[in-house]
Amino acid sequence: MYTTKGVVGYDLTRLLIGSEGTLAVITEATLKLTPLPEARRLMQAVYTNVGQAAAAISRIMAQPATPCALEFMDAAAIEMIRSYSQADLPHGAGALLMIEVDGPKSALDDLATAIHTAATDSGLIHFHEARTKEESDALWATRKALSPALRTIAPNKLNEDVVVPVSRLPELIAGLEGLSREFGIPIVNFGHAGNGNIHVNLLYDSQDPQQEANARPCLRQVFDLVIRLGGTLSGEHGIGREKRDYIALAIDPPTLDLMRRIKAQFDPKGILNPDKIFPPAT
Amino acid sequence: MYTTKGVVGYDLTRLLIGSEGTLAVITEATLKLTPLPEARRLMQAVYTNVGQAAAAISRIMAQPATPCALEFMDAAAIEMIRSYSQADLPHGAGALLMIEVDGPKSALDDLATAIHTAATDSGLIHFHEARTKEESDALWATRKALSPALRTIAPNKLNEDVVVPVSRLPELIAGLEGLSREFGIPIVNFGHAGNGNIHVNLLYDSQDPQQEANARPCLRQVFDLVIRLGGTLSGEHGIGREKRDYIALAIDPPTLDLMRRIKAQFDPKGILNPDKIFPPAT
Repeated sequence: MYTTKGVVGYDLTRLLIGSEGTLAVITEATLKLTPLPEARRLMQAVYTNVGQAAAAISRIMAQPATPCALEFMDAAAIEMIRSYSQADLPHGAGALLMIEVDGPKSALDDLATAIHTAATDSGLIHFHEARTKEESDALWATRKALSPALRTIAPNKLNEDVVVPVSRLPELIAGLEGLSREFGIPIVNFGHAGNGNIHVNLLYDSQDPQQEANARPCLRQVFDLVIRLGGTLSGEHGIGREKRDYIALAIDPPTLDLMRRIKAQFDPKGILNPDKIFPPAT
Repeated sequence: MYTTKGVVGYDLTRLLIGSEGTLAVITEATLKLTPLPEARRLMQAVYTNVGQAAAAISRIMAQPATPCALEFMDAAAIEMIRSYSQADLPHGAGALLMIEVDGPKSALDDLATAIHTAATDSGLIHFHEARTKEESDALWATRKALSPALRTIAPNKLNEDVVVPVSRLPELIAGLEGLSREFGIPIVNFGHAGNGNIHVNLLYDSQDPQQEANARPCLRQVFDLVIRLGGTLSGEHGIGREKRDYIALAIDPPTLDLMRRIKAQFDPKGILNPDKIFPPAT
């Protein structure tokens, strides 16, 4: 299809996207490009707890100055940033948001004001606007260094990208803190707050018998928690082999069977990534 | 699914959207709402011919001040508007664009300037910015009256919503003018220019034996033209019963067979809108 619109027959393009190579081999793709915005501005908002940050996320997403990025970090992630950067972050912080807006240069002041207004409540203990591109780049570098920096805490990690409705974010983070204590596994959380898509990192040492024994049972409880909160197992990473044994938590048996039957129409011989997404038939 | 993101299993939601009731009965839908923009501004740009308008559309879509609406009207549609409204449109106009931008109030002047710059070339014979909400509403009322006004020209119409790549718009309109002359059927064209999604209206009188005999053969030639230009039969209306006999023009036999087999997985008894989308099996 070479048009940006089309409703002739079923939307097979969307069915193939995210199918992890189980339905077809894509040999050619025509992409629609979006023009780069004229300017951007990055803000940081720090809250005493996750509940206040989650309420701010909801307010930010409900007003028209929609951010182009809205990143969340929990207390453990904030402490990590403090330990390896010069970031001037207040102590006692329970949650940090990075909020970026883009648009015409003339609009940025108003967009930033709208974000500041939506972000403000009694729990906001720090709000900062990056004033130069260098400062903004430095803040993003801090965020992007988080994932590799996890390796300095523990030799092994289980990194999942669960999703919950934004309103359930406080329960997710509180639940994860409980599981971390219960299983003795540090859990660091950050991710894409506007979608409730959080990277949950279970940090452990496979040479420690107790941690090695606890890591996967803890992960199973993480997934149970996510499902209880109306969420799902993955927002962008997919299922692959790692999560196929958990997919039945998120998808009921008739729907899973329907998906298997759809795969059989595309791939009657079962040769396209046969081990991915679906657990082996029992 | 209650999350705005999710890649667990196949994207059945997207498969159901546009399936015209042939795969499932949707009993509940959770929608994501987008906040209303703070302000809008509408512009009108008139060109001597469709080629210049199409080049302007491409320039407008390639710069960051993306319009929230970008409507096209051909010469016949412009003449209709002139005949039933007080619109001050220049004579000799071959194409008219209605271009609306939205965003924060403080950005509108810059957005409008960017649109004016992108819209300008040697073929631009008239450019006008609506300065009040009343004026903007009046211009939109003119556009929205076009479709009902077609009934005053001829008692019958065949109204299709074909799509072509924006770069092929001049060839589409020229081809439609040729078919109109060849079959003696007036054709009026307008629609959503940014997507190349054009409402093609064949106007005829079913009581006139010549027109009645010519209307459907002319429509078949319209679809052939669209396919030749790399387009497709429908951008938003769908296939239903009216266009099912043409679907093989747009979708090759193996893909059409695959779609039929997907339907059979959802609807093994063939009870869900059995007459829609697909022609009866031969």
